[in-house]
Amino acid sequence: MNCLSPSILSADFSRLGEQIRELDEAGAQYVHIDVMDGMFVPSISFGLPVIRSIRPCTDRIFDVHLMIEEPGRYIEDFVGAGADLITVHAESCKHLDRTIASIKERGILAGVALNPATPLQTVEYVLEKVDMVLIMTVNPGFGGQKFIPYTLQKVRDLKKMIDARGLKTDIEVDGGVNLSNVEEIMSAGANIIVAGSAVFNGDVAENTQMFLDILNS
Amino acid sequence: MNCLSPSILSADFSRLGEQIRELDEAGAQYVHIDVMDGMFVPSISFGLPVIRSIRPCTDRIFDVHLMIEEPGRYIEDFVGAGADLITVHAESCKHLDRTIASIKERGILAGVALNPATPLQTVEYVLEKVDMVLIMTVNPGFGGQKFIPYTLQKVRDLKKMIDARGLKTDIEVDGGVNLSNVEEIMSAGANIIVAGSAVFNGDVAENTQMFLDILNS
Amino acid sequence: MNCLSPSILSADFSRLGEQIRELDEAGAQYVHIDVMDGMFVPSISFGLPVIRSIRPCTDRIFDVHLMIEEPGRYIEDFVGAGADLITVHAESCKHLDRTIASIKERGILAGVALNPATPLQTVEYVLEKVDMVLIMTVNPGFGGQKFIPYTLQKVRDLKKMIDARGLKTDIEVDGGVNLSNVEEIMSAGANIIVAGSAVFNGDVAENTQMFLDILNS
Amino acid sequence: MNCLSPSILSADFSRLGEQIRELDEAGAQYVHIDVMDGMFVPSISFGLPVIRSIRPCTDRIFDVHLMIEEPGRYIEDFVGAGADLITVHAESCKHLDRTIASIKERGILAGVALNPATPLQTVEYVLEKVDMVLIMTVNPGFGGQKFIPYTLQKVRDLKKMIDARGLKTDIEVDGGVNLSNVEEIMSAGANIIVAGSAVFNGDVAENTQMFLDILNS
Amino acid sequence: MNCLSPSILSADFSRLGEQIRELDEAGAQYVHIDVMDGMFVPSISFGLPVIRSIRPCTDRIFDVHLMIEEPGRYIEDFVGAGADLITVHAESCKHLDRTIASIKERGILAGVALNPATPLQTVEYVLEKVDMVLIMTVNPGFGGQKFIPYTLQKVRDLKKMIDARGLKTDIEVDGGVNLSNVEEIMSAGANIIVAGSAVFNGDVAENTQMFLDILNS
Amino acid sequence: MNCLSPSILSADFSRLGEQIRELDEAGAQYVHIDVMDGMFVPSISFGLPVIRSIRPCTDRIFDVHLMIEEPGRYIEDFVGAGADLITVHAESCKHLDRTIASIKERGILAGVALNPATPLQTVEYVLEKVDMVLIMTVNPGFGGQKFIPYTLQKVRDLKKMIDARGLKTDIEVDGGVNLSNVEEIMSAGANIIVAGSAVFNGDVAENTQMFLDILNS
Repeated sequence: MNCLSPSILSADFSRLGEQIRELDEAGAQYVHIDVMDGMFVPSISFGLPVIRSIRPCTDRIFDVHLMIEEPGRYIEDFVGAGADLITVHAESCKHLDRTIASIKERGILAGVALNPATPLQTVEYVLEKVDMVLIMTVNPGFGGQKFIPYTLQKVRDLKKMIDARGLKTDIEVDGGVNLSNVEEIMSAGANIIVAGSAVFNGDVAENTQMFLDILNS
Repeated sequence: MNCLSPSILSADFSRLGEQIRELDEAGAQYVHIDVMDGMFVPSISFGLPVIRSIRPCTDRIFDVHLMIEEPGRYIEDFVGAGADLITVHAESCKHLDRTIASIKERGILAGVALNPATPLQTVEYVLEKVDMVLIMTVNPGFGGQKFIPYTLQKVRDLKKMIDARGLKTDIEVDGGVNLSNVEEIMSAGANIIVAGSAVFNGDVAENTQMFLDILNS
Repeated sequence: MNCLSPSILSADFSRLGEQIRELDEAGAQYVHIDVMDGMFVPSISFGLPVIRSIRPCTDRIFDVHLMIEEPGRYIEDFVGAGADLITVHAESCKHLDRTIASIKERGILAGVALNPATPLQTVEYVLEKVDMVLIMTVNPGFGGQKFIPYTLQKVRDLKKMIDARGLKTDIEVDGGVNLSNVEEIMSAGANIIVAGSAVFNGDVAENTQMFLDILNS
Repeated sequence: MNCLSPSILSADFSRLGEQIRELDEAGAQYVHIDVMDGMFVPSISFGLPVIRSIRPCTDRIFDVHLMIEEPGRYIEDFVGAGADLITVHAESCKHLDRTIASIKERGILAGVALNPATPLQTVEYVLEKVDMVLIMTVNPGFGGQKFIPYTLQKVRDLKKMIDARGLKTDIEVDGGVNLSNVEEIMSAGANIIVAGSAVFNGDVAENTQMFLDILNS
Repeated sequence: MNCLSPSILSADFSRLGEQIRELDEAGAQYVHIDVMDGMFVPSISFGLPVIRSIRPCTDRIFDVHLMIEEPGRYIEDFVGAGADLITVHAESCKHLDRTIASIKERGILAGVALNPATPLQTVEYVLEKVDMVLIMTVNPGFGGQKFIPYTLQKVRDLKKMIDARGLKTDIEVDGGVNLSNVEEIMSAGANIIVAGSAVFNGDVAENTQMFLDILNS
Repeated sequence: MNCLSPSILSADFSRLGEQIRELDEAGAQYVHIDVMDGMFVPSISFGLPVIRSIRPCTDRIFDVHLMIEEPGRYIEDFVGAGADLITVHAESCKHLDRTIASIKERGILAGVALNPATPLQTVEYVLEKVDMVLIMTVNPGFGGQKFIPYTLQKVRDLKKMIDARGLKTDIEVDGGVNLSNVEEIMSAGANIIVAGSAVFNGDVAENTQMFLDILNS
């Protein structure tokens, strides 16, 4: 199934609960939660207390994307705050298998994210172990960036790798996705779509609906 | 003048704008904004997009407390997000004078924070240059901790140091402050009081009013 | 030749010399020495003074596995302490070729270790230069962990890579090896077997003998 | 009471249990356990498995001196391994009060160590909270170094500071102590004496006895 | 076209302008500028003020090779100092695509350097985006080292990869190149040749001429 | 004796030998050599090969100021390159006494530098061991900055501390010194004066002479 995961990085944080409920009602299946620590990426976004506060606003999947150094240090805290899926960057884990195992042990879903330049071999041996691979289609750190064209090929390569092994691993795409390029991205192999400004600029319900229409067609 | 700086670390982030407006209406002069990066302190709280979203909700002083590694990297961003006062930890600045200068150059107020164990000599030479010294009365990283008794003496020592030089530097106190100990803290020399759970647990307006009554008496 | 390298991480450090001599007499060809710094891996095990003290107890090959940050800093010291073979983690060397060269220059054997998730391409260009590749079959840091099944495929892939180039590079396997799985591991291509708790829990001589029987069959 | 804390850094690690029992029988009240991580200091000595193995050999006080980066990460592990007293370096703790509190909460004794150049103001505010201050009289990292003369004045200054507050805090001295200078060190104010090579070079029982004779005179 | 990029690491820094002019007159097309920070590599060479001072001495291409941690921090400064081409190490960039983009945005050429052991997959997805790939044929950090033979195969593999995609990406080779091995290196696929001691030991003009003769033949 | 130490950070690096000889002939007693690594300070200046090249140009004292992380790693190299005096920053040395000792052991002079905000207690115990204390009067990292007024008091405090102990330790001042403020700085207690742009902007010989006239008056 194709799913939409609106990134709240572009939301209005003065009324975040309300925005989360709008997404929920509009039918978005995931909520993409971009945690940035100012060390792995050049911005500090938000973290634990924010997630805890919005957890009661929806039952949708909390898709927590940790753009932080050594995320293994905080898995327990983010699970406790309400994460349903935690994605860690391969580039920031010395012991990637251990970090994935530590997510799975707590009974939630695990993903691995790859920066645009990072080769797919990085996930070769852990592919069976993760529920999702997140292909960054911009350099992580900010909302509102332009989709990097060559990453489309990487989505295709990953899809081929997953199919060749008979796996069902989800492919999430994050960065510069909008109503004009989402179809091409899906036909490359992605089935979970992150969208930030394209959902939150303008009418949230309407934007969500337009994305879902394309995702379900 | 004595001022209250409620720490939104203990707020409800699903309706943060509303909570900010409650504080504003109840008369709190500052909003204490605890930025944590998970590197300098063992938690990730929130950062730039949250501050930007709540800036339009009030004209009160945004008192941004950076519990992050090398805060000099982000001064420009936090000023851009709406900070009126930025406080940096002496323990996380290799070049403390440069970081303070970089805050002042942008036309806002500058503070230095000291962990409980850090001696006052650390600020000896920059005391004239800062608008405020923040004495941590718990170890930074979490809300809801217990006030560390020996830090009271440190507030007294700092007050003496400031008076001896004929300065008007503000003394802020952060950690474990509540309605029972705030008078003792003020009589030790503090004039800006941070309170988190003591403001946000229960009725925000009422708690704020009770603090302000003591601060103004 | 197949060899056993009992890991003294599971030994009794109050009578380490005695345990080393037991291993020697029982016929183990290597002594596996797990150096952990608490930075690259989440435990601090032991280092230089321990190795120096046990060097006179045996002539067996001291197979020193450095689970430390930037091992290049300590090659000289570990050679001086009595190492016959030093294995460094590819994940902790910025300049892997230099570190390998620095081991070889001192006239001892050099190995490269790979964490479970690390792809084999990492050693593609240095394969000719090393005497051994160590495939981690658990995440390094502790004794007594369970063998990670997918790493068996990695041993097979490595064996293929080595054979394809006509090399004789040793393949060592470390983590969760016991009498039940050692045959499968050997048939995947490993010829140097690290075993910790499986050797030291119970009768050391007997356990060693049982491993050697399988290794020599 | 004056106590001897022989540093096992200079012991024979092939028969460590035996050496510990010799110290115990000879009357040494403490066992000084020098944990080095190769990051805070330029050597890797030993850590958790070694301590666990020797814990059953004696009931003497395990005086664990952590020469490691951010020791707060490992307090729980070292308490679990059998430490009775944990000393951390002020230079390697961002949050010194928190680390001390974390030791005390586990029901054991806490100490703070200072490198030769580190000023005493560093412990000014936590002095009431610790059971011991360890004055390094050599630069930490190796056994067998020469006592640095100016540190004697620092011991005197610390003794004055402790007495002025009416405290009973122990003063431990570590580095280059031998039978010729121990009296001078004690008269400067130290009451817990670390000795490494001076105890382990030659007859351990005899050396211990000679130290204890001086300490008790 | 084949080009020579003499590395000024081996120049006489007391008369650097003069040496630069000699290179220019002798016909070298590039000036190779080895910036080392003592962190990524074990030496500190030179940086911004040196480049600024020699910029007026020639119009040749300033080929700035950043052997530094996180080069993204200094791209703007090195462009300002006069770089025409900036090469960054893949091993020191967390966000390689971002750093390359940041070079290209400023209107100059961008390269990626790979240490001897680093696999070519590292540049797989960014190959279209860079103007040059620099294959290190010694471990970076010092002049005057011996060419590492296996890197020749890596040059060949890279050449094949570039040709297979129909690209024109330059291949630069740096380390241990001299008049005896330069032809073999060129026939492996390299077209930009760095030479340090082989140019500066002896008569600079003559050495340059001899290299250019081979490069143009 | 009062001495001038012109900082070559402001020199013309295309003809550095010539500029060094000008300084020598004009009578400057020291050559101030600002090594910056881009990690401890936000610029990369120059290092070993530059110093080696200019060593034959003069017999004046090479006053090497290491603005680098953990300078202890490079003492041997800088002594080998020709340093007569090495100054390290207290803020970048975990083991300050060891680093000073390592300079002195090599038979050259040792200094400690303090950033503007760093208190004098930092050098309290090593004051007897060093030949010079360098008070930074700007934040290190760039030439051409403005003198920070409060540092004058720090020079006075240091002078008092040195005199009180009957020492002859040199006091060097670095940052924003010019012909207008040098007298005030000297009367505060400084006797070694670093000047960069004030010497190199305009006629070097003339500027040097004017400084020396004031220093000798």
